Formats: sequence, C-alpha cells, structure tokens
Amino acid sequence: MANKLKIFNDPVYGFISIPDSLIFHLIEHRIFQRLRRISQTGLSNYVYPGCNHTRFLHALGCLHLMQKAVRTLRQKGVEITAAEERAVYIAILLHDAGHGPFSHALESTLVEDVHHEEISLRLMHLLNEEFNGELSLAIEIFTNKYHKKFLSQLIAGQLDIDRLDYLKRDSFFSGVTEGNIGSDRIISMMNVADNQLVMDEKGIYSVEKYLISRMFMYWQVYLHKTSIAAEIYLIQTLRRAKELVQQGYHLDAHPGLQYFLNRVTGSSFDAHDLEIFVSLDDHDVISAVKLWQHHEDPTLAFLSRSLIRRKLPKAQIRNMAVTEEEYAEKVEFCRQHIGEGSADYLVHATPLTITPYDNKKQSILLLDNEGCCTPIEHSQKQILTASLLQSTTKFHFCYWNTNKLKAIMLNNN
Amino acid sequence: MANKLKIFNDPVYGFISIPDSLIFHLIEHRIFQRLRRISQTGLSNYVYPGCNHTRFLHALGCLHLMQKAVRTLRQKGVEITAAEERAVYIAILLHDAGHGPFSHALESTLVEDVHHEEISLRLMHLLNEEFNGELSLAIEIFTNKYHKKFLSQLIAGQLDIDRLDYLKRDSFFSGVTEGNIGSDRIISMMNVADNQLVMDEKGIYSVEKYLISRMFMYWQVYLHKTSIAAEIYLIQTLRRAKELVQQGYHLDAHPGLQYFLNRVTGSSFDAHDLEIFVSLDDHDVISAVKLWQHHEDPTLAFLSRSLIRRKLPKAQIRNMAVTEEEYAEKVEFCRQHIGEGSADYLVHATPLTITPYDNKKQSILLLDNEGCCTPIEHSQKQILTASLLQSTTKFHFCYWNTNKLKAIMLNNN
Amino acid sequence: MANKLKIFNDPVYGFISIPDSLIFHLIEHRIFQRLRRISQTGLSNYVYPGCNHTRFLHALGCLHLMQKAVRTLRQKGVEITAAEERAVYIAILLHDAGHGPFSHALESTLVEDVHHEEISLRLMHLLNEEFNGELSLAIEIFTNKYHKKFLSQLIAGQLDIDRLDYLKRDSFFSGVTEGNIGSDRIISMMNVADNQLVMDEKGIYSVEKYLISRMFMYWQVYLHKTSIAAEIYLIQTLRRAKELVQQGYHLDAHPGLQYFLNRVTGSSFDAHDLEIFVSLDDHDVISAVKLWQHHEDPTLAFLSRSLIRRKLPKAQIRNMAVTEEEYAEKVEFCRQHIGEGSADYLVHATPLTITPYDNKKQSILLLDNEGCCTPIEHSQKQILTASLLQSTTKFHFCYWNTNKLKAIMLNNN
Amino acid sequence: MANKLKIFNDPVYGFISIPDSLIFHLIEHRIFQRLRRISQTGLSNYVYPGCNHTRFLHALGCLHLMQKAVRTLRQKGVEITAAEERAVYIAILLHDAGHGPFSHALESTLVEDVHHEEISLRLMHLLNEEFNGELSLAIEIFTNKYHKKFLSQLIAGQLDIDRLDYLKRDSFFSGVTEGNIGSDRIISMMNVADNQLVMDEKGIYSVEKYLISRMFMYWQVYLHKTSIAAEIYLIQTLRRAKELVQQGYHLDAHPGLQYFLNRVTGSSFDAHDLEIFVSLDDHDVISAVKLWQHHEDPTLAFLSRSLIRRKLPKAQIRNMAVTEEEYAEKVEFCRQHIGEGSADYLVHATPLTITPYDNKKQSILLLDNEGCCTPIEHSQKQILTASLLQSTTKFHFCYWNTNKLKAIMLNNN
Repeated sequence: MANKLKIFNDPVYGFISIPDSLIFHLIEHRIFQRLRRISQTGLSNYVYPGCNHTRFLHALGCLHLMQKAVRTLRQKGVEITAAEERAVYIAILLHDAGHGPFSHALESTLVEDVHHEEISLRLMHLLNEEFNGELSLAIEIFTNKYHKKFLSQLIAGQLDIDRLDYLKRDSFFSGVTEGNIGSDRIISMMNVADNQLVMDEKGIYSVEKYLISRMFMYWQVYLHKTSIAAEIYLIQTLRRAKELVQQGYHLDAHPGLQYFLNRVTGSSFDAHDLEIFVSLDDHDVISAVKLWQHHEDPTLAFLSRSLIRRKLPKAQIRNMAVTEEEYAEKVEFCRQHIGEGSADYLVHATPLTITPYDNKKQSILLLDNEGCCTPIEHSQKQILTASLLQSTTKFHFCYWNTNKLKAIMLNNN
Repeated sequence: MANKLKIFNDPVYGFISIPDSLIFHLIEHRIFQRLRRISQTGLSNYVYPGCNHTRFLHALGCLHLMQKAVRTLRQKGVEITAAEERAVYIAILLHDAGHGPFSHALESTLVEDVHHEEISLRLMHLLNEEFNGELSLAIEIFTNKYHKKFLSQLIAGQLDIDRLDYLKRDSFFSGVTEGNIGSDRIISMMNVADNQLVMDEKGIYSVEKYLISRMFMYWQVYLHKTSIAAEIYLIQTLRRAKELVQQGYHLDAHPGLQYFLNRVTGSSFDAHDLEIFVSLDDHDVISAVKLWQHHEDPTLAFLSRSLIRRKLPKAQIRNMAVTEEEYAEKVEFCRQHIGEGSADYLVHATPLTITPYDNKKQSILLLDNEGCCTPIEHSQKQILTASLLQSTTKFHFCYWNTNKLKAIMLNNN
Repeated sequence: MANKLKIFNDPVYGFISIPDSLIFHLIEHRIFQRLRRISQTGLSNYVYPGCNHTRFLHALGCLHLMQKAVRTLRQKGVEITAAEERAVYIAILLHDAGHGPFSHALESTLVEDVHHEEISLRLMHLLNEEFNGELSLAIEIFTNKYHKKFLSQLIAGQLDIDRLDYLKRDSFFSGVTEGNIGSDRIISMMNVADNQLVMDEKGIYSVEKYLISRMFMYWQVYLHKTSIAAEIYLIQTLRRAKELVQQGYHLDAHPGLQYFLNRVTGSSFDAHDLEIFVSLDDHDVISAVKLWQHHEDPTLAFLSRSLIRRKLPKAQIRNMAVTEEEYAEKVEFCRQHIGEGSADYLVHATPLTITPYDNKKQSILLLDNEGCCTPIEHSQKQILTASLLQSTTKFHFCYWNTNKLKAIMLNNN
Repeated sequence: MANKLKIFNDPVYGFISIPDSLIFHLIEHRIFQRLRRISQTGLSNYVYPGCNHTRFLHALGCLHLMQKAVRTLRQKGVEITAAEERAVYIAILLHDAGHGPFSHALESTLVEDVHHEEISLRLMHLLNEEFNGELSLAIEIFTNKYHKKFLSQLIAGQLDIDRLDYLKRDSFFSGVTEGNIGSDRIISMMNVADNQLVMDEKGIYSVEKYLISRMFMYWQVYLHKTSIAAEIYLIQTLRRAKELVQQGYHLDAHPGLQYFLNRVTGSSFDAHDLEIFVSLDDHDVISAVKLWQHHEDPTLAFLSRSLIRRKLPKAQIRNMAVTEEEYAEKVEFCRQHIGEGSADYLVHATPLTITPYDNKKQSILLLDNEGCCTPIEHSQKQILTASLLQSTTKFHFCYWNTNKLKAIMLNNN
C-alpha cells in the first residue's frame, strides 16, 4: 500500500486518498460495498435529477474531510495519536453503514424499531471480530465513551464531519448552490479547548454561513414538498405491502425484502436479521414496487404506479396546519374516485419542524485570541445566529384532486 | 406553461428550462421517466463512484444545449422555424430513449440484433401516434431525411449536441477534469454554410481541445480497464443466464427480463417486445444478479458474486495483443481453480480501437471570415488535429490469478 | 459585426458577447477604455489579493446579465422593443463610467461635491453628442424618466443588474465564497407586474440567499477592517496633499491630479473639469503616492509610506462606539511618536451602518401564481428576510500603538 | 504565529496558509510587497480583461502548491528535513522577485543585459543579509547547488511548481478553460527516484494533459496576436523614450524610471541600480506612457496613444514568414501616413517558436510499480507526448493599414 496509495476520484473534492491498508480492506468489504447501492438522498432525485449519489461516496468524502481535520488540529498543537487517527477514520467511514434502502423508508416501516445508528454499531462489532479487534477504539469513539471528547464530536455534533460532507455534497449534486458550504474553511478553523471541539473566532462568518446554508438545504432539498410526498408514498407502499403479506397475500419481492415484510415489529433484531439486512439495497425495493404496479390490491397498485411513473399527489408546504374540514374533503375525494380505504394511504398531513441552530443540545463555541470560549450566539461579532435559535414549524399536506388519477389507475399505460 | 415555465436544477449547467408544453408532456411520459433508472455510463461507477448520473439527466442536458445552439445560429442569421426548433428539441430529447439497462449490456446480449437507435426510433413512432403526429418532423430530422442537413448534424455528427453534453457531463460526474470541454464556447462558434453545420474558424482551439478531451475520456473513463472488465462480466452473466434458461433451468428475475432471456435471437422485434422492453431498467438487472449469486450453476454464481461484491478479475490494457500462450495459461488456471468450462466466461481478450478524429466519416469544417470552409485537419492554424487522425489499438485482457477467488466462491461471505 | 460578433472571455460567466456595433464602438471609446485602469474594489486587494478586477470587466459583466434579463422577460411575455433593449444595454454599460481613481477616494476628496453618478450622466451626454443622439433613450432610462419603470429598476434598484454582477464578481475574485450569489437563478425569476420589476415567488430562496450574501460581502469584504483603514489613509493622503498644494507647496504628480489638488471645492464642475477627470485613473494616484513617500512634509510622507509598504494602522471593528478617552489616548500616542498635528490624519473613528434589506426605499415584490404581488418581508414563505430589516451599526477605529512605526518613518527601507 | 496562522484567501485554491513566521516576515517585506504592483501576465489584460492578477498572488500560490508537494513526497517516504522544507518555501516564494514592470518589457529594454532570475538572486542575497543568513539554504537550492537535486527541480524544471501555479492561475483569470490543469493531481503523483523528481506512472494522463494545456496557453494567451502586439509596442515605447533621453530630450517620468532611461546598457548592475530597480513597478510605466501621449516627438506620442487608448496595430500570426515585399509595403504605408522613421517602431515581424515538450533539456520521468523510470515519450502508455516533441514556428506580423490611425494621431480625442 505504501507505494501505491489508492486514490478515488471525487467530483466534489478532486481526489480522496486512502490512508492505510486497514481502511482499504474495510472499503473493499461487502458490507461497505453495499453502500454503492444505497442512495444518499432517498427520493430527492425525483426533484433534483442530479441527486443519484450514494452513501458510499458520502462515506469516502467524510474520510477525506476527516484527514483534513486531523492535519489541522495537529498543526495547532492538538495531540492525536496514530491509533486515534485511524480510529476516527474508521468511525466516520462506517457511521452510516447501517442505513437501509433509501435510508429512511425501511427504517420507518420494515425495521422501525431499530435505528440505523444502532445497526451501524452492530456492523462495526461484526467487523471488529473479523478484523481481530482493530476497530475497538473506533467503537469507543463512535459511542462517545472515549476520554478525548473532541474526537467523538468530530463524528457527531453541531459541526461534525458528517454534516460538512453531506451538505456540500448534496448541494453539489442537486445543483442548489444556496447550500454550498465552505467545508475547507470551516475545518481550517477547527480547534480544541478543554477537550471540546471549538472554532477559531475568525471563522465566525463561515460558521454563520454554514448554519444558514443548512437551513436552506432543509427547505429547498430535504423537505422539498415533492420529495417528501414521494417518500411518504414509498413508506405507505411498504406499509401496505406488509399488511397484505401479514394477511396472507403473496407479493413478489427479493427474499430478503419478503423476510422483513413478514417480520413482527418489536421482535429482537438478531444476527440473522442483521445478515439479511445487509443483503438489501435500493434495487430490491424499486424492483418490488415495479412488480407491485400490477398487484390485485388496488391500493398497493395505485401507490406503486404513482411512484414508478412519478405521478405524485398534489403537495403543499404551508404555515397553517391542515384543518379537519380540508382533510375530510380530500379523504372523501379519494373514497369516491379511488376506492374505500384508500385515503388512509393517499392523504397525509405532516408537520415539519426545523431548528436552524439548536443550542439546547450543544452550542458551537468560538475560541478567541485570548483563549476564551463563547457560544456563537453570544458573540459580539455574530450577525445572524441569534435569529436562528427559533424553531419553525410548517405543514406538509399531500392529497389528490386531479385527473392525473386516470393515468395512474389504468393498467396498461 | 407560459406563466410557470418548468425549470430543472442541473449541477452541470445550473438551470434547464423546458421550452414548451409538448416537450413537457414528453418528459412526463412513462417512456421518458424510465430513463431516470438507466445509468448513463454503465458500470463506470465501479471506478468513478460519482458516476451515477442517468440518461434522463443527459437528455435534459442535451435539450439545454440545443436551445443554446438554436439561439446562436439564429443570431448569426440562420433561419430555423418554430416548427423546426421544436422538432430538434424533441429529436435530441428522445435520441437515447431506446437504451436498455446499462445501455450496452442488454444491447449486446438479450436483444443483440436490434440497435438502441432503432428502438429510439420505434419509440418516437409510438409517441407520435399518441401525440397525434406532432413528432413527425422530429422523426424526419432524426432519420436524416430532412432537407436542412445541419439540423440532423446537430443530433448526430462529429460535433453534435449529444457528444457535447455527455463528454462534459461524464467528466463532471467522474471528476476526470481532463475531459472537461467548453460546450458553451463550441456552441457559440457553430455556424451553417452550404446547409452544413460548421465552426467559426476562431473556435479552432476549442475544437482541438474537444477532440483531445474526448480521447482522454475514452482512455480514462469509457475504456478504463476495470469498468471494461465489469461490463464484460455483466454481459457474460446475462449470456450464461440466457443459456441456462434456454436449457430449461429456472432463474429468478423480473418477468420482463425473463421474457428476454427466453427470446430467440433474430426473431422479429415486435410491438409486444417493445412494450416489455420499456418496462426494464437497471434495477431489474441488478436485482436478478443479486439473486443469482446463490444459483446452483457455479459459473453463474461466480460471475454474479464477482459483480455484486466488486471482486473483479485482474485487468490490463496494453499495446501488444495477448499471445496464445498467455491466453491458454489463464484458461488453465480457471479450469483448475474454478471449474471446467468456466474459462470461456471468465477469461477475455478484447481489442480496443480509438480514432480520436475520424475524418473518413465526416470532417469538421472551419468557416473563415471570407466565407470559405476548410476541414480542420487542413487548416494552417491547427496545432494537434493532424496527429489525431490515426487510429490506436490497444488490448484489454482480463483473467484470474489470485486468491480473491476464495472470497467470491464462498457462499456466505 | 453580424458575421464576427465580438466575444470577451470572462472568468465569471465564460463568454460575454457584444450585441451590436454601437455597443462595440462605445466599448472601444477612450472614455470606456479608461475603466480598464480603475479597480472595482478600491484597496480591497490589500486584504484579498485576487481583487484586481476592474470597472471595465464589471461593466461588461453587467452587459452580459442584462442580455439574460431581457431574454427572460421577453420569454415571459413582457414587451421590450429593440430600441429599449439597446438602451438598457447602453445604460448599464455606462452606469459607472464616472468613477474616479479607486472609485471612492477621489469622490470624497478631490471632487467631493460631485457624485460619480452625476459624472456618469455627464459622460453619457458627451457620448450622445458624439454618437448623434443614439444614447437619448438610454439617458431617459438611466435618469428614471422613462415610462416603463421596470427598465430603470434593472439599472438601479434593490435587485438590479449592477448588484447582481458586482456581488458575484467580487465574491469570485476575493475568494469569499460566502458572497457567491446565483445571478442566473435570480434573473430567471425576474418578471414584470404593474410596470414594476418583480420576482416570481418560487425564486424566494434565491432572493433571501442574495440578501444574506450581500450582508456577508459587506462585513467580510467591503467593510473589512484593514481595507477600510487603507481607504481612510488614501483619503487622508489626498486631503493632506490638497492642503499642501493649496498652501503653496510643490508636489510631484500627474498634471491632471495636480489640477484637482488645486481645484476649489464647490466651484462648478465644467466641461474642462470633465475632460481632465477622464484622463485620471488609479495609476496616477499610486504613482504620486509613491513619490510622496519622500516628501518633506512628515505627515504626507508617513501616510504615503504606510500605504505603499502596506504597513497599516491597527484597525478594529466593534459593537461599541469609541470613547473620548480611548480616542484621546491614541491621539496622544501619535503626537508623541509621530509628530504634532499628525493624529488628525492618522487616528480615525468611523461608524459603519448596514441595512441588509432596506424596504423603506423599496420592497422586493414577489409575484405568485395568481398574479398577486407581496413584499418579500410579508411573504408566508420567507424564512430570514424579516430578520434583515434591522440596521446594524458597528464602529471602525484605526490608530497606532506599535513599533511598525519605525519601519515606516525610516526613509531608506 | 503558531496560534494565529496567517491565511490568505485565493480564488484559485481557496486558502493559502503561511507555514512559519520567517516566511511571514519575507512576505511583509517591501521587496515582496512590490510584487502586488507587478502584473503576472504583462499586457494580456488587453485581450483577457480578467488577467489583472499579480506576481504577488502567483508567488503565494506557488508557496501553497509547494506545501502540497512536500506533504506528498514525505507521505511516500522521501526525506525532507524541516530546514529543507523551509528553504524550498523561501526559494519558490522569491523566485520571481526580480521581475520588473510588466515582467518582460523592462527586461528587454531598460536593463536588457540582466536577466530577472539574476535579479531575484541578488534580492535573495540582500534579504539573506537582513535576515542573518536564514536564506542560505534557499539560495543553494535556487542555484541548483544543493545535493538533493529534486528540491531544485521543484523550483525549476519541466514540471516545476512555478509552472503548475502559473498555468492554472493564468487559465483561471483569463477564462481560457483549455489551459486549466490538474495541479493537485500532478502533485499527488510526484515522487523521487535516484534523487530526481519523477512522476508515478499512473499520473501519465495528467502529465499529457498538462503538456497540451501548456501548449494551448501559449497559443491562446501568452502568444495571442494582440497582446504580443501590445507588448511589442510597449517595448518600442521604452526604446524610443530611451533614445530621446539619451539625445537630451526631457521626458516626464518617475525618477527611478528616468534613471534607467539614462542608464548605459552593459554597465555593471550595482547595489544602487538594484535599490532603484525595486522602487519601480507597473504604475510608473503606465503613468509615464500616459504623459508621453502628449510628447513633441511624434513617434513616442503615437506609440503611447496607441497603448493607452488601445488602438493597436493590425496583427497576424501565420505559418509563413513575412516576405520582404510585404514588409516593405507596410513600411511605406507608415512612412506616408505617419512619418519618416516611424516604421522602424511600428512595423514588426517576429518569429514565435514553441516546443510543447522539450525533452532535450530534460525528460519527464515516469516511475512504474517495479521502481523503473522511463521518459514519458518512450512509455507504452503515452497517447500524445510523442507528437509534442516537435517545435513549431509561427510568424507574428504587426503593421498599420487602416483609418484607426486618425483617432490615434489626433491629440485631443
């Protein structure tokens, strides 16, 4: 490896180099290779057609930024040993390994009782066995049990490497330039004080820009009314499929997906479940939904065709909650035009809340030239952060009221 | 539409606007929506992990560049009527609609007797019926039967809009900056003389840069030794699957894929075939290959696992052809370590030939200030084109000689 | 021209094409060519060394964006005649022609009684005579006397073409990515309602991003503590030079600069003044300041050396005003270490006020799908604008307290 | 410094950090600050209006890339001590410090007997005294006397840091994307074998792309017919000025410039000359030329006005040399329309020769996985280099044949 360091081309950062052979072998492992088939942004490509990037590339991007962070901190005199360095690389590389197909659809439906971070941790333990304990320190850091807290904060925190990569990357692939952040600058401003990850004060504008860009990415991409509608429909599709399977219907699907459609919520997630889980990816879900377009259950067929043909419901995001009257009216529409019982799957009102900067969890600390730390929201120099502390709640509403229905309900078009 | 012109975000060009409602309805059509699930660059993402962009986005990008081309030519006094304008938009939008899963794998295996351009044309006729003849002029231009030849040359030629988009786009998503071309500049230099598409002479360097970038893209991306190996293996997988099916074995797969595995080569490609063809996409192929990892046929299982786990054969690209001795040695290795008959699927020697600038088909013409046209290769100003006329042949060789085999052959890892 | 449309290369937009021959001749004119020697951002290059771009390039960039704006508005059905089109091009091209050396230094010192827009207008009248009245409509629009108000708003308003270019361009050359705005997107969202320039509602986030980027550019670039200090010193240098000349001292300088050093404030700015004004540019000021480093007047020499050697005073930007005690202390320091009377030139306290979005002058109007206009600050969809209405005042303070002095005061180093 | 590492914003690389305080003090020194006033690309901004970047920024850019190179080589196991590291930083930072105004104009006219590298070296010695010998090792490396040859090759060679920065930077600011090279990739491929700087073989395409981009930059930017014409005229202006001064005429100009106009070619370039040399920059030349527009000597006035008003001669670049007849005809035109004796200054035929890859000086060596080095032109993998060994000579010809003359010859317009 020393002589032929592996390099990946990345359209975002140019080149991503793999720092050592253990990391290389983890990347080669089928558990990590699976991430090539898990899209990073779910169904956002229904709105932003460039958004086909995967968790695989995101994880490599994180590895790249983490190398910068380690270099920066060391230059500023922060001690990070070779073992710690490798451990943060491993931890960030695998932090999302537990994501299922479309990241959130399976999580909220098929194995809704087990969070993806829990699965990532399970996978790290699995790999730790296979690699003779070489991941132990990474696991300590990932679970926030290591004494150097700033290392864990690089993995998960208000300004962690994960966010620095995904915001930049999702902005890049979506073409939503409002979300483009200066990851480089932010990392070059990282520092450590009292064992905490902090920011040099002169990076204050970069941090404010980051907080705002993140908020823009939420409203423009992650919570775009149409991709939210598509994700709701994907979840409903799987929910309906699960019900049908548990009622004894036959549904064509990859055996692994069948397994989870049959699985009883709340049963323990054992080693066998884990093994099947890592055989699943986006392809299995899409393939199944394609087949279900022709299923005898009209609700399942309707949902499936809606997704595959991208004939999605009317969607709004608004400041006022949906009233009972509005909701009832749309339910009635479905009942009349689509079928009894369909509205429960087709009409949805969902509140969406964003806190652009959540200082209740943790504040971003600025380190001034005298060595003092101040939460950014109390800094004399902040120009916008104070107005980002407030949560905003908006309301998503999706329903049907149009003749698009016809196209979807007809089988052979 | 006039009041709410649809706009797509594109990371390459920023915004792509849809010029009229007919184009909009074509994009909304399930035949075009399918292209969201066909990757633009086959298995290049095995080497360049950013390469997950689709034929859908490429087609929109072409539409965008074509709008620039029409605007430029009109500014220079070339007459293009409103009907012709719409027709070139439609023709470029649909020129790749006939691509099957992974673009070339199916083409060379399952329906190897029908070229994707033929299928694109068939689909245009289908849509023409549905849209009451509004695609007739587009079809005329697409089939090069229209009297204004330059319109057809914008669709297919040495410097067509298709190439201008895919080179730039594939360079962008792969991160191979050597392939980045100045599509904008090239289009701004387009002109028409004697009914032919030509280039203003002052754009000569942009054209030379384009020819060189194209050559780099071939050697670095399209013909990368590893993605060629992966595509060969995908083709062999489907070939083996077809043989097994035709021998009476059962193979799990999407019914549409099953249909083509059963189809006899050379039988006429009828309306029914076409209908099934457009139900297929990358997901069906990947899902099937995932299932085939556990098939009883060891060759099919080996190929499938090689692909899904990305444990690919050793691959070389070299100047000298593979000798019989070399080939025989690798065949023997397969026979011994993998199984009788496996080598025919696992060892491949393939010549690769590139002509960076093929003036035998057609020359790129430069228009000087006096109104004369000269083939670029004869221009006094050219600095590199003359050295690009020569074809280069290299040799791809992929085979096994390592212990990666073990990992692939073991079922449960 | 039709056959050989002139094109400029621009690192920001790629290519800028010149729409017709009148525009071309205006660009060729010595009055416009002078702008090649006027820097766009004054002394910002002392902080951002990439900031050497000129008013010449900014004006061309505006011309480029204006062409996009005209195209967009016409596509939406807004009538703009050929004559109006040409007139807005001319008006935007020449809107800054009246800037003197370093844009603001001369304005506030040598001809402090005449605003640069007044001079731009005078120059347009001059050119109008030379070009036989072909600029008349441009002048009407520039002076906001034309009945189609939206045309004047494209030249000067809350979201005019001038700002759209300079924010993007200054962000580009400074490398301050926080200020990068989506000019393209914003222009694509422009519309006209009731004769006013408005924005399509779906562009709301782009507008909010623009308002925030503008605020960042102010705090990070235009009001950077060090470039403000440098500009104050340039102004003081010229002020001191003027005093000395008017006291009868000899100062080496370009004759045109000499002329303005001698000019009495408040005297009418006549044709002769105008002719001399357009002979001046940044070079004359810098050359003079270089010579003045060795002048016998210690204050002039000190200021000049401070600028040329870039040994600038200590500078702060802070939330609290400078107290009388602080100020007196710094004055005393100058008196003791530099010389009697120097403090008046060397110590400065300056309030800086920014209103990120000044809706008192004019609101940005959003046009919804029903054709109604709403000020963005009242839109249900706005997420940040409401917090941008407030003015912020900070305080700039520059003074000396260090041993840099020595280096500056010594003649021969 | 350790706690507050100085960072420069650079539009090309983002951030450039200053590695230690000695480097910081060298940057602060007036000798280096002067480079803020020396344009990197002479008069290229007459053609590419974004090209106003300076030698100051280029030197910082080199410093940035050199840090990457040192990091890369160390990662590959090449030993570079802390002292050597600092020395290569200093050497690359100051390698161009000896450039005069517009880099090449003064060099070929006023001090035509002393090369800028000689002056850079003289300045390094001067600074070495001032900084107590801390530059000695840098000087050894700069003069190629240090035993680790690869360090000197990083400063000057076929693929040195200087070229890697200026090609990328000039491409960036000119907007000529054909010249954009992958400096990052090339540096990541650097290695050392037998004490020589070599390239890892897998970087071959990046090197070929670099050689081609360099050739494009020569033909499109550095040897653009119009900027060559402008530079010839600047040289002729200074030549004429020198003649006039030496004939006893008075010419207004900065005293330093006067000094060199009076200086006799071939006299020794002593410490006093050096001191005056570093007081000069672009501003002094432009200011003088502006004044000379009104000089009594018609040739000087003509040349000066031609430059300032950018009314440049007709220029061609062609494959055939200028014949005596052509030349005589243009001389006669000048004699008749401008004046006796003017042609010698206004008509010029100049051969321009480029060797895209000059392997006679030194080959670029590729290091393969077995540790062997091969000149790139002999590599089996090269696809273009072999065609880049040939020199190309073209011919520049500038002359007058138009009515532009009138505008230039009239005094008051």
